[in-house]
Amino acid sequence: MTGGLTLAEIASRLGGRVVGDGATRIRQVGSLEKAGAGEIGFFSDPKHRAKLESTRASALIVSADAEGLSALPRIVCDAPYLYFARVSQLFNPLTTQPPGVHPSAVLGANVSLGKGVSVGAGCVLGDGVVIGEGSCLYPRVVIYAGCTLGRRVIVHSGAVIGADGFGLAKDEAGRWLKIPQIGAVRIGDDVEIGANTSIDRGALDDTVIEEGVKLDNQIQIGHNCRIGAHTALAGCTGVAGSTRIGRHCIIGARANILGHLEIADHVQISACTTISYSIHKPGVYTGLYPSEEHAGWLKNTAVVRRLAELLQRVRVLEKEKKNG
Amino acid sequence: MTGGLTLAEIASRLGGRVVGDGATRIRQVGSLEKAGAGEIGFFSDPKHRAKLESTRASALIVSADAEGLSALPRIVCDAPYLYFARVSQLFNPLTTQPPGVHPSAVLGANVSLGKGVSVGAGCVLGDGVVIGEGSCLYPRVVIYAGCTLGRRVIVHSGAVIGADGFGLAKDEAGRWLKIPQIGAVRIGDDVEIGANTSIDRGALDDTVIEEGVKLDNQIQIGHNCRIGAHTALAGCTGVAGSTRIGRHCIIGARANILGHLEIADHVQISACTTISYSIHKPGVYTGLYPSEEHAGWLKNTAVVRRLAELLQRVRVLEKEKKNG
Amino acid sequence: MTGGLTLAEIASRLGGRVVGDGATRIRQVGSLEKAGAGEIGFFSDPKHRAKLESTRASALIVSADAEGLSALPRIVCDAPYLYFARVSQLFNPLTTQPPGVHPSAVLGANVSLGKGVSVGAGCVLGDGVVIGEGSCLYPRVVIYAGCTLGRRVIVHSGAVIGADGFGLAKDEAGRWLKIPQIGAVRIGDDVEIGANTSIDRGALDDTVIEEGVKLDNQIQIGHNCRIGAHTALAGCTGVAGSTRIGRHCIIGARANILGHLEIADHVQISACTTISYSIHKPGVYTGLYPSEEHAGWLKNTAVVRRLAELLQRVRVLEKEKKNG
Repeated sequence: MTGGLTLAEIASRLGGRVVGDGATRIRQVGSLEKAGAGEIGFFSDPKHRAKLESTRASALIVSADAEGLSALPRIVCDAPYLYFARVSQLFNPLTTQPPGVHPSAVLGANVSLGKGVSVGAGCVLGDGVVIGEGSCLYPRVVIYAGCTLGRRVIVHSGAVIGADGFGLAKDEAGRWLKIPQIGAVRIGDDVEIGANTSIDRGALDDTVIEEGVKLDNQIQIGHNCRIGAHTALAGCTGVAGSTRIGRHCIIGARANILGHLEIADHVQISACTTISYSIHKPGVYTGLYPSEEHAGWLKNTAVVRRLAELLQRVRVLEKEKKNG
Repeated sequence: MTGGLTLAEIASRLGGRVVGDGATRIRQVGSLEKAGAGEIGFFSDPKHRAKLESTRASALIVSADAEGLSALPRIVCDAPYLYFARVSQLFNPLTTQPPGVHPSAVLGANVSLGKGVSVGAGCVLGDGVVIGEGSCLYPRVVIYAGCTLGRRVIVHSGAVIGADGFGLAKDEAGRWLKIPQIGAVRIGDDVEIGANTSIDRGALDDTVIEEGVKLDNQIQIGHNCRIGAHTALAGCTGVAGSTRIGRHCIIGARANILGHLEIADHVQISACTTISYSIHKPGVYTGLYPSEEHAGWLKNTAVVRRLAELLQRVRVLEKEKKNG
Repeated sequence: MTGGLTLAEIASRLGGRVVGDGATRIRQVGSLEKAGAGEIGFFSDPKHRAKLESTRASALIVSADAEGLSALPRIVCDAPYLYFARVSQLFNPLTTQPPGVHPSAVLGANVSLGKGVSVGAGCVLGDGVVIGEGSCLYPRVVIYAGCTLGRRVIVHSGAVIGADGFGLAKDEAGRWLKIPQIGAVRIGDDVEIGANTSIDRGALDDTVIEEGVKLDNQIQIGHNCRIGAHTALAGCTGVAGSTRIGRHCIIGARANILGHLEIADHVQISACTTISYSIHKPGVYTGLYPSEEHAGWLKNTAVVRRLAELLQRVRVLEKEKKNG
């Protein structure tokens, strides 16, 4: 980062058009509020125009329609947020842990680690685990035996990959009989897995996370699920067993997708929405119960359990009307 | 597993009636889709009849009414799924970690481990923890001081048993005063606890998980709860403090049960349902807000906050009607 | 605890008025159900009056209006529950782990630990982590590089502080580009963090948890959030990125607060409620979809997707009425 890059150098690497002093030297990215000398911010949301006027950043990344909103040296581009991400990657590493296996990590038999893999303190890798080139496991990740990770996979602390799925059969006495979970977990290239997220191994076949999938924190993926390539799941989502989610989907925070369902490609599920049926058509699906001040909620929610009756009463009124 | 068992040998151990070649040798269980030579699948859901026709399994487990749907060697029994579970247990161990304490595990003073207990890498057991015979703690389980586990308990990685409950009293200045949590956690025989699940110790008395309870991943059990024997909780469920759940209940994924409630035996709570009152009668209870395409949700959900008003308007119409 | 304290000694330290034998010796607190000789219970909820009659506790903590409900030696005070918390603190330590760094803990470069800090087995502290005086990290806590904790902070096992926030930008091909998360996490004095809770580091600026905040288990705090002083969040709550919660708020279990919102001071969010808008006014906000027996739920919930239509039908009836 020493020396940094000039706006002109950044534009020569990433494209975009420089307006103002192309020799302006940038050493880091920053927010409009906190950025200082040598830092570049970005502007994409007109709501934040006030911040634009007060920022102390040395330069900006803006879209063409916002080009005139600031006199600061700036790079004009089509997608300021994406451009900002690329600039940030110029100045900052994607992972902050050096390659190699920390001495406190525990590796089972026949573990295979690709070139440049980083295994953090206290990680535990079971027998036969395979980790592809350039992957980074932060401290205290557990990967059960037989699971495989692709290249450039990032796994954050507390994640558990390959624990037994919840496979139970009820016996004649109403006791639960455990079904051995003999599948594994297969994770593709460029997947990121958040802190304290768990992905269960398959009951018979494998649980599969395809390339480019991004999982936030505190997520639960049940056994035998398949998450399609480049799908992103926000924090606290849950996907129940044997559900298949398509490619390029976006699943909002704390969404739940029940088991044995199929979700098509390019489907977007809103935050805190439960999906209880298969979705065959791209689009946005929502099921968030609205909140309000408690007194109003009490009155309105009391009617929820009477909705069928209410509909019936309206039908009667309509019928009477019709019959004059 | 070498050699495996013939269908006849399996039936002689587990019952059921062999149809076709009883000498068919089985080495493993498999799914209808992926099973190959030496593997046995099961069929219980008519929806999957197509899979039955295309399977490459060497044998099947079927119910009497499905007996004629395949020409493969098969075992006919009353409960194919339960039978399948038992066959899988013949070929696969219930836990995959050898007995003994991994050198990287940390044990406090006066820890008592029963015969054949397995304590995985990086586990931490506090002072006075007691683990019953044949239990298996996978890597990185933490059990706080004074907690006791029964026999044949399985605990998956990341589970935390016995952390402080959320006991707070507000002082005159609006600050939270911590109430020492001096109870413990008592877990019965044959309990299984999923990855990254947490069970808090009691505030004064103990939190109790009775025998045969099955907890999936990412579950939170508050202080002083009691979960009745042979009850199963699916992933991401939450049970708030001092709630008592009966025996043989089934709690669906991401269900929430609020605090200080009583749930009777044989109650079933649907997934993503919140229970805010005690339940004294067995049955199925549901409270899942439906999802739909976003545009429709916007229109419908806007009415939710007007339900009390809507009911009142219908009352008025009915009154006017009555008064002619 | 040996010897304990007499009621008179307790009252002389904590205030309150002794009724009955002030020489009664107390060694521990207890619940009305389980308390025995030498233990003191508390009574604040008239619902539990029966327990009051059957308790074997040696003494009680009661409010003035309940003073006459028991003949046991008792301390009369304004806030029995708060008083009970203070008595419990006299007899029990707030944390049960001795000061010092467990040999199995892993500390990065330039870690700074205040006086009396306790770092449990298997904890991992990244480079430059700062922990204030008297703080206690239970086993297997991970704190990423550059994060700072104040004084007397308690962090329970499995908590992950400072993992990357979920910062992604979509590229022209629909792939997710990771935005380096270069902020950190700053935690104030007297904060408690529950088991398996995760607090993400900031994308650019820091994520901030102010003094006196109490976080229960299994909570997810997204990047760049700010939680105001003395706010309490119950288990399984989720706060999405860049949301600011005020001071002295109470957030119920499994509540969700979406991203980029502002919540005022002294706001209370009910359990299992999702907040999707900023709240500028103190009060109680609720959005919990009611549950009921499954058959009734099926009928009522089917109408939810027809609410807009139902409202329209009522409008038509009203119009016809008006037009005679």
